[in-house]
Amino acid sequence: MNTSYNFAAGPSGLPAAVLERARKELFAHGDDGSTAFEQPFTGEAFGATLARARARLRDLLAVPDNYHILFLAGGATQQFSMVPLNLLGNAAHVAYADSGHWSQRAIREAGRYAAVTVAARYEGERPLAAPPLSAWRLPDDCAYCHITPNETADGIAYPALPDCGDVPLVADVTSCLLTAPLEVARFGLLYAAAQKNLGIAGMTVVIVRDDLLRRPAPLVPSSCDYRAQAAQESRANTPPTIAIALAGMMFDWIAQQGGLAEMHTRGQRKAALLYDAIDASGGFFRAPAAPVHRSPVNVRFELANSALTAPFIEYSARRGLHHLRGHSAFGGLRASLYNAMPEEGVRALIACMADFTRSYG
Amino acid sequence: MNTSYNFAAGPSGLPAAVLERARKELFAHGDDGSTAFEQPFTGEAFGATLARARARLRDLLAVPDNYHILFLAGGATQQFSMVPLNLLGNAAHVAYADSGHWSQRAIREAGRYAAVTVAARYEGERPLAAPPLSAWRLPDDCAYCHITPNETADGIAYPALPDCGDVPLVADVTSCLLTAPLEVARFGLLYAAAQKNLGIAGMTVVIVRDDLLRRPAPLVPSSCDYRAQAAQESRANTPPTIAIALAGMMFDWIAQQGGLAEMHTRGQRKAALLYDAIDASGGFFRAPAAPVHRSPVNVRFELANSALTAPFIEYSARRGLHHLRGHSAFGGLRASLYNAMPEEGVRALIACMADFTRSYG
Repeated sequence: MNTSYNFAAGPSGLPAAVLERARKELFAHGDDGSTAFEQPFTGEAFGATLARARARLRDLLAVPDNYHILFLAGGATQQFSMVPLNLLGNAAHVAYADSGHWSQRAIREAGRYAAVTVAARYEGERPLAAPPLSAWRLPDDCAYCHITPNETADGIAYPALPDCGDVPLVADVTSCLLTAPLEVARFGLLYAAAQKNLGIAGMTVVIVRDDLLRRPAPLVPSSCDYRAQAAQESRANTPPTIAIALAGMMFDWIAQQGGLAEMHTRGQRKAALLYDAIDASGGFFRAPAAPVHRSPVNVRFELANSALTAPFIEYSARRGLHHLRGHSAFGGLRASLYNAMPEEGVRALIACMADFTRSYG
Repeated sequence: MNTSYNFAAGPSGLPAAVLERARKELFAHGDDGSTAFEQPFTGEAFGATLARARARLRDLLAVPDNYHILFLAGGATQQFSMVPLNLLGNAAHVAYADSGHWSQRAIREAGRYAAVTVAARYEGERPLAAPPLSAWRLPDDCAYCHITPNETADGIAYPALPDCGDVPLVADVTSCLLTAPLEVARFGLLYAAAQKNLGIAGMTVVIVRDDLLRRPAPLVPSSCDYRAQAAQESRANTPPTIAIALAGMMFDWIAQQGGLAEMHTRGQRKAALLYDAIDASGGFFRAPAAPVHRSPVNVRFELANSALTAPFIEYSARRGLHHLRGHSAFGGLRASLYNAMPEEGVRALIACMADFTRSYG
């Protein structure tokens, strides 16, 4: 019986069923006597693990045939460099929408390789909101436009996607991929580090439309060349085999639970419960984001009396509710409600907030 | 009872004791309820895992204080790009010794970022041998000189290290790190992908002298900037947490077995047994490398009658001896004898070779 809940922004908790399956399958000896930890990654056993994970993800997201699915080593920050290195081609510049902490980091890194047009600027004024799509300024001749649909640190999300015309839309969906259905065809490239909704740290999924692989990438490291990785089925460099195996188990689990529509329903319900409790606290707790921009996966909130932040974190940890501290750039509180967080975890947090209010209010 | 042996060039088998420990510890719930798969990598629990692994490796190799130990995502091919990107600085060129397949791949990748002087050229003539150190041509003004002390695919090793004077020596020690004591102070930088002697796929260890971090690296991706990774203790990007935990367990196991001197003794004995059996086969089996250049960890050999290669691989697999196929570039046979390979595995292979000879000779 799990009486602890992990509200960290990542790595997230894993469903108990996935942990149990991992414990059984990762240590099982295959025909060649090897466990998943020891299989040659050029061999049949790992090849089957890789193919199954890819097929399952393609199925879950209804990824069109003209998109490649890559499982690459490292986290999203590595893709902050690899996206411009792979996609810039002969274009003069790239466009980025600034919507907070992580898109700003993506912009800084892209600026080392290309001229960046900031298509929309985050103001950071309260209530927090992603920049309005109507104000986007998007030059025709940029190689792509980059968006961060969910800002993990700021706790805000775009209510809708921009229309970028012929400019390929590139998205860092690290914290929201597989939390809801997504129309892949609207994007040129999607990337997501695995440790939130897709398993464990050390792997990033890249989904890329095949025509974007044709652009020259003279200085991209071979290990990060999307074209080479697509041609070699993510094995152009040593793949993160265990992270890929775990991602496959997460994909299976999501499918068994009812797929992305079900994840979306559950996610909306969990987020509504928590935001409603914050809003109903009479100002004792408060959420800084405008309602329509509130992230359903990273609920950022705070205590009106900031002197109570540390006591609340300690109080909740004693009740088995862990890692509620806000991002270091902002302080306050944050509850991340990824797919593996059960509704009981959210209800336990709400009960804890009520009890804390009674004791300290 | 393990009756199968994994002779793959990587990932290698893991010691049974390490697998058992992983099964127990990776799934144990910590104070916050999280398993190793779920711990925040900025948190205390993973911080302790990281610090222990680093301290143990420093101890095993007697790494001097002025060297940083980094645990980075990805494999050695990624470092083929990152070494020149991090170390080129303002130098006009870099020097590489060509000793076979993997050093040639390192040279090709470095050539995309810098002018490469090939300090020594591999001839590939039989008997196979690394280029003699006496013939090395090493310009004073190169940023570093790169060597691959053990060529995993070719099955050859340098019998001694070159004297590069003031030029920092950089080595890809992927297949030989921790198989013998090594004088770290002779190197400016060492790197090794983990899946041979240090655990599982998806992580590379970099050991780098701190003065080499001062060189400017204008285009190195932030996630691969050694300076940033040193400053942030390998967490400048999402670290491969499980691979780091496994590496720590491998370091502990090596220490418990008696450390690098013991690994060296065992390795020499295993290699001598196998090469002696090959040499004593009356030419039925043969090793293409000159005796003094024979790799102790990657024993490349072949059947005089190459039509027997496939039947031998099948025959040995039926006896639980797996992954003896040679590197795809060369064909033939290869038995990798990393630290986790017990002497019984080598004896089983020798017995299998003798039986096969009786049946097919």
